[in-house]
Amino acid sequence: MDYLFLLAYLCIMSAGLHIYNTLSRKKELFVPLNPPFVGLYVCGPTVYDEVHLGNMRQFTSFDVVYRYLSHLGFKVRYVRNITDVGHLTDDGDQGEDKIEKKARANQIEPMEIVQKYTNGFHHIAKLFNLIEPNIEPTATGHIIEQIEMVKRILANGYAYEVNGSVYFDVKRYMQDHKYGELSGRKIDEQLEQTREELEGGSEKKYFADFGIWKAAAPETIMKWPSPWGEGVPGWHLECSVMSTKYLGQEFDIHGGGMDLKFPHHECEIAQSVGADGKAPVRYWMHGNMLTVNGEKMSKSKGNSFLPMELFSGSHPMLSKGFSPMVVRFFMLQTHYSSTLDFSNEALEASEKGFQRLMNAYTNVWKLSASADGNPVLLSEIQKYSQACEEHMNDDFNTPKTIASLFELAAIVNKVSNGLEKIHEEALTVLQQTMKTYIEKVLGLQPEANQDSQTLDKAMDLIIEIRKQARQNKDWATSDQIRDELAAAGIQIKDTKDGTSWSLV
Amino acid sequence: MDYLFLLAYLCIMSAGLHIYNTLSRKKELFVPLNPPFVGLYVCGPTVYDEVHLGNMRQFTSFDVVYRYLSHLGFKVRYVRNITDVGHLTDDGDQGEDKIEKKARANQIEPMEIVQKYTNGFHHIAKLFNLIEPNIEPTATGHIIEQIEMVKRILANGYAYEVNGSVYFDVKRYMQDHKYGELSGRKIDEQLEQTREELEGGSEKKYFADFGIWKAAAPETIMKWPSPWGEGVPGWHLECSVMSTKYLGQEFDIHGGGMDLKFPHHECEIAQSVGADGKAPVRYWMHGNMLTVNGEKMSKSKGNSFLPMELFSGSHPMLSKGFSPMVVRFFMLQTHYSSTLDFSNEALEASEKGFQRLMNAYTNVWKLSASADGNPVLLSEIQKYSQACEEHMNDDFNTPKTIASLFELAAIVNKVSNGLEKIHEEALTVLQQTMKTYIEKVLGLQPEANQDSQTLDKAMDLIIEIRKQARQNKDWATSDQIRDELAAAGIQIKDTKDGTSWSLV
Repeated sequence: MDYLFLLAYLCIMSAGLHIYNTLSRKKELFVPLNPPFVGLYVCGPTVYDEVHLGNMRQFTSFDVVYRYLSHLGFKVRYVRNITDVGHLTDDGDQGEDKIEKKARANQIEPMEIVQKYTNGFHHIAKLFNLIEPNIEPTATGHIIEQIEMVKRILANGYAYEVNGSVYFDVKRYMQDHKYGELSGRKIDEQLEQTREELEGGSEKKYFADFGIWKAAAPETIMKWPSPWGEGVPGWHLECSVMSTKYLGQEFDIHGGGMDLKFPHHECEIAQSVGADGKAPVRYWMHGNMLTVNGEKMSKSKGNSFLPMELFSGSHPMLSKGFSPMVVRFFMLQTHYSSTLDFSNEALEASEKGFQRLMNAYTNVWKLSASADGNPVLLSEIQKYSQACEEHMNDDFNTPKTIASLFELAAIVNKVSNGLEKIHEEALTVLQQTMKTYIEKVLGLQPEANQDSQTLDKAMDLIIEIRKQARQNKDWATSDQIRDELAAAGIQIKDTKDGTSWSLV
Repeated sequence: MDYLFLLAYLCIMSAGLHIYNTLSRKKELFVPLNPPFVGLYVCGPTVYDEVHLGNMRQFTSFDVVYRYLSHLGFKVRYVRNITDVGHLTDDGDQGEDKIEKKARANQIEPMEIVQKYTNGFHHIAKLFNLIEPNIEPTATGHIIEQIEMVKRILANGYAYEVNGSVYFDVKRYMQDHKYGELSGRKIDEQLEQTREELEGGSEKKYFADFGIWKAAAPETIMKWPSPWGEGVPGWHLECSVMSTKYLGQEFDIHGGGMDLKFPHHECEIAQSVGADGKAPVRYWMHGNMLTVNGEKMSKSKGNSFLPMELFSGSHPMLSKGFSPMVVRFFMLQTHYSSTLDFSNEALEASEKGFQRLMNAYTNVWKLSASADGNPVLLSEIQKYSQACEEHMNDDFNTPKTIASLFELAAIVNKVSNGLEKIHEEALTVLQQTMKTYIEKVLGLQPEANQDSQTLDKAMDLIIEIRKQARQNKDWATSDQIRDELAAAGIQIKDTKDGTSWSLV
């Protein structure tokens, strides 16, 4: 009975959602470990600077994953971490902690850097309409758990201590387990030789070993006592600890940018297996990178812009600013696993598309149903509604979903322009489908300030009435308008080009 | 030379700011330990539920302290913590962790409770226009530091271990140091007898002892390994650890609500002295409590309301909603150290006062200077400007500062109504004083959405013109208005009581 119930449940709930699993390199039917619960972990930002646009793309992609899973009825626990210690400048074992470096440059406490850029990230996330994760754990908030995990890895023989640092022993691990399965990397013997010569002075036994606990220099500010002396956890360790602490030793989905596949995520698997004997993740998902006019985004090329530069249009490569919702729409017009190319032209085109879609979405609520509506419309609307679901079920294919929404927008426009009549049921399906996919699943919102737009239109009307009154020499009305606008804090100015207004 | 420079600096910088120090029970000249730096620590919320209005009052009071210190030129490091573990239901050593209890009731992970109410608190803080602290540390983020402090207290002989819990030994501490200096409480021998009888089964040696590390029950979710077994830090410990970690072993100002004076802050002093031999705080500041219609606010009396109920007016004791800025203004009309009584009438009066002040503040930027301005005005304005500073220097006396701002508002109104003329210099001083104290120091902002208010007024005008058109049987104009409003997404409805409008 229970088994049948579960089976039925799975059929309904998963509704044929397929996810491209980086680990198996194919699209798989999504079957959660403990339905209706789903555990979703996404690597969050290292808060040492303004959040990158590339990061925001990943968070937006996984925001849609979270939204769609919730829409399907799953009870998702969404964990996205904040890296506030341990991420070194070379993204590996060398260099300085990114946050501490920034703090030193600014002569302030590292945690002030953390606070500033965490706040900044939250602000941008809100502008992009990202749903807040259920838990947003920090690396500094889980030092004890990280020390405990290092102890377990050491106890299992998969790590060794040198001068107060602890390294993961990749060669020893490979005797018992596979290493490199996720990224498909093979340990290259030749490279190995080269690297071993290069790193003659290294504490590592083997070039592919990685630090899971690093001894701290005396001048280091962020450090904690441990069985191996004062130090900091290795960067890869925090995600292993925090994902399994809050989602269980084995959980459903782990997401992140493609650049994290190796070494970050590969090391996460090795750490979990090394500590607890279990691969932690069922479905690994990786989002692709950004380019700008076909080139890799990079600070040195001057083609890297921050979200705020994009919104304000203050970057020299942009002709104007683009609103957060336009940028969100633009991002979702490309599949999360494809490269996304930013260019001024592409953004301008997206802006027009977004406005077209949102106009139709505004208008769909103003349509009236007719008793003599075209009966064909219902099946047409149902076809595109079905298509939205199929596209989302196909590894969250947002560009195709958006294309189907444009088909629905075309129907709205036809009815709106009187070219078609729609009956009650069809109108209801049309409205609900657009609401579900535009607002709930894709997370797109009508733009900015409706009051401000309506005020623009109300003022156009008032200015027109005043013009007519003046043409009719109805000075009483024209004076009344001028006086009451002044009282309302609105100043009007008559120029050669017409009448303009402004708030005083 | 250095000494003279420092002396001069102090004279300029501290500018005669006096703070009522709970420890000395008198107003003292504020002399920072390391000018121009000032360390300010404020006890933040325990995030197990929606933030209380009483909490928000404390945070608003200390927001003004932070703003005024910054205005004086100090470089303030403002630390306000988030309590996410260790705060028990009885605010002492008994009961369950408040967050874990809530998590159990909701069948979710404690950190999901933490995340939800931290986000909620940040949202309300933004509405109240609180400046974000420089560091917002969490108790769970500092478990190691807390364990280290327990170790130091134990090593100094001021604590003892029983069954995996560690208690602060108040009797032993009193042999070497004073206990109760901050709160003025004396250990009552009789009470002691009573309590010792009452707590026969207690692990404590002495009734006044308090837990600094508590052994965790097997079913406890939030717990960490320690030298004394798995457990959680005592509630008072986190503030001792986080304040001194980020502000130094001795720092300038520690603030919090009066209810925290004992035992929370008294224990903080004992812990710091017990661990490191040093009293941590130069100036202790305590904000007073809220009452409602003269009675203590409490859930059981049904007279307790949440910030959101106050904004929306959804509580039965309120006739209407009051905006966050009105509530902020209302709070600042009472000195932080006095009881603040909420009542519908008092809030309505504050709302009128706030609008009067903000209207004057809007108008002050519209005034024109005249060459023949009244020369007396400048000295009058300077007098009130000086008064604002003197009041703020007198232990942050915001009600008196607001009274002086109303005197300046009266001058604005006189000039605005043509009863006085003002010359350039006087106008500049008037504008700058109002900007400094209204916006920068008191943190009051012009209300909400100006567009929305202006739209209201523009619509009043349009509806009036339409009414006149209909009275004049000018159907062309009245139809034009209806059609263009519909196109702008505005629906108008004619009823017996007049014409109303709404956005579609």
